[in-house]
Amino acid sequence: MRPTQELLAAMTLEEKAAICAGLNMWMTKGFEQHGIPALQMYDGTNGIRKTNSNEEMGITGENIPATCYPTGSAIGSSWNTDLLQELGVALGVEGREMEVDLLLGPGINMKRTPLGGRNFEYYSEDPFLTGELGAALINGLQSQGVGASLKHFAGNNQEFEKIVTSSEIDERTLREIYLAAFERIVKKANPWTIMCSYNLLNGSYTSENEHLLNDILREEWGYEGVVISDWTAVNDRIRGLAAGLDLEMPGPAYYNTKAIVKAVQEGKLDEAVVDKSAGRIIELVRKVKEANVESAPANVDYHELARRAAAESIVLLKNDNSILPLDSEKMSKMAVIGTFAKQPRIQGAGSARVTPTRVDIPWDELKNIVGDKVDLVYADGYPQDDRINEQMIQESAALAASADVAVLFVGQPEYVESEMHDLETIELPLHQQKLIKAVTEVQPHCIVVTSSGSALAMNSWIQYVPGVLHSWLTGQGSGKAIADILFGHVNPSGKLSETFPVKLSDNPAHMRIRGENGKLYYREGLSIGYRYYDRKELAPQFPFGHGLSYTTFAYSDLKAVQQGEHVNVAFFVENTGTMFGKEVVQLYIHDEECSWNRPQKELKAFTKIALAPGEKQQVHFVLEERDFAYYNTKYNKWVAETGYFQIVIGSSSRDIRLRERIHCDFGLEPISFHKFSLLNDWINTPKAKTIFEAYLAEMNKHVSEQVILDDVFIGFWGDFPAIKIFQMFGQTWLIDRSPDDVIAEMIAEFERQ
Amino acid sequence: MRPTQELLAAMTLEEKAAICAGLNMWMTKGFEQHGIPALQMYDGTNGIRKTNSNEEMGITGENIPATCYPTGSAIGSSWNTDLLQELGVALGVEGREMEVDLLLGPGINMKRTPLGGRNFEYYSEDPFLTGELGAALINGLQSQGVGASLKHFAGNNQEFEKIVTSSEIDERTLREIYLAAFERIVKKANPWTIMCSYNLLNGSYTSENEHLLNDILREEWGYEGVVISDWTAVNDRIRGLAAGLDLEMPGPAYYNTKAIVKAVQEGKLDEAVVDKSAGRIIELVRKVKEANVESAPANVDYHELARRAAAESIVLLKNDNSILPLDSEKMSKMAVIGTFAKQPRIQGAGSARVTPTRVDIPWDELKNIVGDKVDLVYADGYPQDDRINEQMIQESAALAASADVAVLFVGQPEYVESEMHDLETIELPLHQQKLIKAVTEVQPHCIVVTSSGSALAMNSWIQYVPGVLHSWLTGQGSGKAIADILFGHVNPSGKLSETFPVKLSDNPAHMRIRGENGKLYYREGLSIGYRYYDRKELAPQFPFGHGLSYTTFAYSDLKAVQQGEHVNVAFFVENTGTMFGKEVVQLYIHDEECSWNRPQKELKAFTKIALAPGEKQQVHFVLEERDFAYYNTKYNKWVAETGYFQIVIGSSSRDIRLRERIHCDFGLEPISFHKFSLLNDWINTPKAKTIFEAYLAEMNKHVSEQVILDDVFIGFWGDFPAIKIFQMFGQTWLIDRSPDDVIAEMIAEFERQ
Repeated sequence: MRPTQELLAAMTLEEKAAICAGLNMWMTKGFEQHGIPALQMYDGTNGIRKTNSNEEMGITGENIPATCYPTGSAIGSSWNTDLLQELGVALGVEGREMEVDLLLGPGINMKRTPLGGRNFEYYSEDPFLTGELGAALINGLQSQGVGASLKHFAGNNQEFEKIVTSSEIDERTLREIYLAAFERIVKKANPWTIMCSYNLLNGSYTSENEHLLNDILREEWGYEGVVISDWTAVNDRIRGLAAGLDLEMPGPAYYNTKAIVKAVQEGKLDEAVVDKSAGRIIELVRKVKEANVESAPANVDYHELARRAAAESIVLLKNDNSILPLDSEKMSKMAVIGTFAKQPRIQGAGSARVTPTRVDIPWDELKNIVGDKVDLVYADGYPQDDRINEQMIQESAALAASADVAVLFVGQPEYVESEMHDLETIELPLHQQKLIKAVTEVQPHCIVVTSSGSALAMNSWIQYVPGVLHSWLTGQGSGKAIADILFGHVNPSGKLSETFPVKLSDNPAHMRIRGENGKLYYREGLSIGYRYYDRKELAPQFPFGHGLSYTTFAYSDLKAVQQGEHVNVAFFVENTGTMFGKEVVQLYIHDEECSWNRPQKELKAFTKIALAPGEKQQVHFVLEERDFAYYNTKYNKWVAETGYFQIVIGSSSRDIRLRERIHCDFGLEPISFHKFSLLNDWINTPKAKTIFEAYLAEMNKHVSEQVILDDVFIGFWGDFPAIKIFQMFGQTWLIDRSPDDVIAEMIAEFERQ
Repeated sequence: MRPTQELLAAMTLEEKAAICAGLNMWMTKGFEQHGIPALQMYDGTNGIRKTNSNEEMGITGENIPATCYPTGSAIGSSWNTDLLQELGVALGVEGREMEVDLLLGPGINMKRTPLGGRNFEYYSEDPFLTGELGAALINGLQSQGVGASLKHFAGNNQEFEKIVTSSEIDERTLREIYLAAFERIVKKANPWTIMCSYNLLNGSYTSENEHLLNDILREEWGYEGVVISDWTAVNDRIRGLAAGLDLEMPGPAYYNTKAIVKAVQEGKLDEAVVDKSAGRIIELVRKVKEANVESAPANVDYHELARRAAAESIVLLKNDNSILPLDSEKMSKMAVIGTFAKQPRIQGAGSARVTPTRVDIPWDELKNIVGDKVDLVYADGYPQDDRINEQMIQESAALAASADVAVLFVGQPEYVESEMHDLETIELPLHQQKLIKAVTEVQPHCIVVTSSGSALAMNSWIQYVPGVLHSWLTGQGSGKAIADILFGHVNPSGKLSETFPVKLSDNPAHMRIRGENGKLYYREGLSIGYRYYDRKELAPQFPFGHGLSYTTFAYSDLKAVQQGEHVNVAFFVENTGTMFGKEVVQLYIHDEECSWNRPQKELKAFTKIALAPGEKQQVHFVLEERDFAYYNTKYNKWVAETGYFQIVIGSSSRDIRLRERIHCDFGLEPISFHKFSLLNDWINTPKAKTIFEAYLAEMNKHVSEQVILDDVFIGFWGDFPAIKIFQMFGQTWLIDRSPDDVIAEMIAEFERQ
């Protein structure tokens, strides 16, 4: 391909406008006459959704088979960046095999509410975890010459009326929560494209949002890739182009090509803007077509990887009396109850739904493990429509009672988790709840395996069940992964990437996910996920970062020390149990004395380590100033305040093992005074106090009620602005000048000295 | 006085500008040459704070004695509008005796957080209760020719940096919560003046806020009285005057008089604006000086009224095993523990603090009741500084153990509840908590009497105590009122006007009362007080509206029926116990199916009825359409939606006795379509469906993937805007027109038909 500037010079305005929209549903336009080939893209986060033709959306039908990996919320619970990178590579290799240039993922929006219809696609409620995982996946993917499309940028966290709703998010919350993962990934993985969302953000469509697309993404973060519209997210194409929305999808959008040309001709749009976007798209084509691809690992067994990824993602929530792992030597009959054992839910619905190449069935995998030694019996447990069916419950209970142990496969029904529709509840269907109670009444050795793409409420039944395994929606390998974990062939190592609340109303966004008059206020602000449960001192059912293992880990010897611009943290973790296992080690920072409110703690580092029994390993983390910072809207920048912090090391966000207090020096803001500086501000700085006292003495000469700066006076008036002291007590003094004049003189004097 | 227009015509611009500021700290300017007298005003909500001179603020010293009634939060718990009216009359009579023309109260801000430094001055967390009580007080006061100054208008609900903080409150929350009580009082009692607050509201100082002072107060509510600045709340006088801030206090504010004159002369301010404010102030002077005062009741015994008001305000929170009332016949020795028994806290600090005419001492009043029959013994219980003093605890416990019953007087120390400073905790001082535990360990017959102006947390000790009486800060008559209630001479009838949470962090505004960069987001929105605890299904320590009695009340026979524009509600309440008592009957409305989220229930009527044992009375309420409405920001008006509501009758907000479902007809919005109307909207209206189908059929002729409106398609795409269906699937059809064109044609066709 010729240099981009040459190409732009050779192209007509019409051609440059035309390249800013796709050719059809899944391609960009190619221009043979200029030697610019078209690009092929397809949906795909947990697998590639390649439709049967380029004209077809294909969301509700079957597509070309591809490997179906765990969905975002599942893989998010692996906390394993190496695995994400490996997955990215595999998606890239398979993508190249399927002739896909761009994969329209990953989706990394924050899980603000467990009811979000696309929650199953997203990684976490925490931006740091999300950012690290997303960056790893994209680095893997793009190493294979397949571009990512990081989505949905930004502030789209529910499905309800998303196209006509403005997410109203204050700037600090936006930076610290809803943009933080995007920022991290842009900087660590440089995704070749970013996909805007459908919604408005603070009053402007994200497909036209100057502040978002230009000020933040381009100017601040330095992003030079292509911004793509979500499918039909374009509304005002001219505004969008001006704001930096390069590529409209789907195409050809003739009407908008014409509109762009017209706008340039009428002087309403600078042609340089069209050149910029067209140029970025051409650069993207070059990047893909001329990619210097590292040779991918040969003969990747995608299904084995899908199984391994599933096994890393499943979370052991509860394991009273070590009911797990099961031992086939110690049982003669085992009851398997629940349709999901034979028809597993492996993913959610919508644009992310992959037609899998094969699917592991839990029942088959359990049979493979126990062989003929154990009598495996089965009942459906619940009907497809989830209406109460007493007979099925009684039959299931009888079956469970006849066995040594019962494993129940339950979860959110398929029809409730889909793009386009938010969930209405996080409870299991009532029938399933009754089923669990009935079974546990007759069979105490009972394990519940739950499937869902988002947090579930369990408080109506969990107290009756000794063992609970949350299997998420873990893709085509989930059947084998579940069976392996149940029988201890694999030691579970997933940890919750989102809080499981006791009940829906505990969630900070409860009753706050439907906009009113087109506005949806993110009222909980920074208090998303564990940040909220911490602030409210509210016990979740299972906290963020929680997940049990068949072995145990001991933490010790935390050391944290600031060295120059970094804080180095080190401590030891030891496998004190009897089984090989992996532990997700979590580092949170608590700011002891920030001048602005901050979350009680925030995740700033993590790693997943593998330890043989008795093995002990030192973990090192290096923290940067930014890890200690919050977004200060007064200065519009990230600010880390000098002072005391705590380095908090946990096995979960509520299972804190080590804690170290450390003083960090990030410099100090110089003292300055403004019109409304408080009396206390003035009298707590010696130089300023002298000035204030002089003016006060002058005032006292002219007033009848003398102001004496004693403890009583300061105790009451200390937090009143000094200007108001003069305004309140100095009225008979203020003949020729105003309180504003007085305070301006004082400030000038302070600055002069 | 001559007619206002004549006076304005006769006055110079300088004079008219000058009258728009006070003469000194507490007076308006008089103009002898025009026959306009000066007005005298003083602080006062729960009593009159008349300083020793007009030049003195006098907040931290002693002032001229006046009757000290219960503070706002106390009297708010009386739920007795007749009593508030009576109090208003008494304040008016006493005001006239003290030569006061205007009383600078009542303060009616919402209690957003229990940490608010002026909470003790305010009535409630509920705007309806606040509005009814405030209106009654003002009607009483102004009937005596003394004007009220309804404050602080508006959105000031904490003390921290209130002068530099903008309360960021969305319009719906503003209308439904923070302005609702002001609106009710303006309409029911027409306060002669309204005092603006110090803070900014949504970016503009309330002393300069056009939307607040003009659009809402003047235009919408039709208010014609005088708006006064809080003391020194004026910042930009010209902007303030233009917005409708009539009177600046304190005066003389020479600099601003000059500034006004200059602004008019330079054409920056219309002289008509000055005329308007000067005219309103002159009208106020006329209203006061020419008031046709109903003759007040002669020989009012203010102290008796103070006692009666206190007795109606005190709330019996807990009374296990009917430990109360005490019976002096059944005891020989009673331990009274706690300094507050001898030095009671009767009010809070700041501008509302009254120098009382006399003070009832609980200890003395208890002695009066028990006489020589009971050996009354006393211990201080805790030191003044509240530092842990083990010896005092041991002595108190020993004293309690030696008696038949112990009464502990505890509460928030005086130094923590004051204007200018927010509280830091709602726990009792640690020493007091230890004291209670120590005493209850040796003396199970234990009653705790708590004093504070705001909600207290009790969860660290309440389980050990059978009896708890919350005495608030109930003014100079509180000592007798407490003693009377303890011994059953008065049956308690107060009910909490605010929720008592289990712990501070349960409060919806927890960690949300300090602004950042000058902005304080009211993030909880409508979820203030019980509205929040309802939404979150969170159990408070004691709910809004809670208060026990020594008798019992039975509710029955609820009937609710819509008749024309009203809903008439009737039911019976019967005193089923053995003692005369008063019951606060509460009516809440629950909207079953509103298209916007609403609080689960809202107080819309209440009354306090007195019943002899066995007496049964029918209660009637008449509800209006507005009682069923919410503030819809799409239409910028109050909207009651036709549909099902529940009339919920409670003895508290959580002790619901009766409930009736009722269908109310308030008319229906006509169906209309807009650019982003959803596919479901189009196909659920027969006429619109026909139009949509015709366009879809046309589209299908030009595209390869046919769109068929089957269940699967509608199930997935139903909540997508119809325009986006064309944009997604009709690209090859949209050659000559855009999706916007198509939808515009469809809407036009719908409207034509």
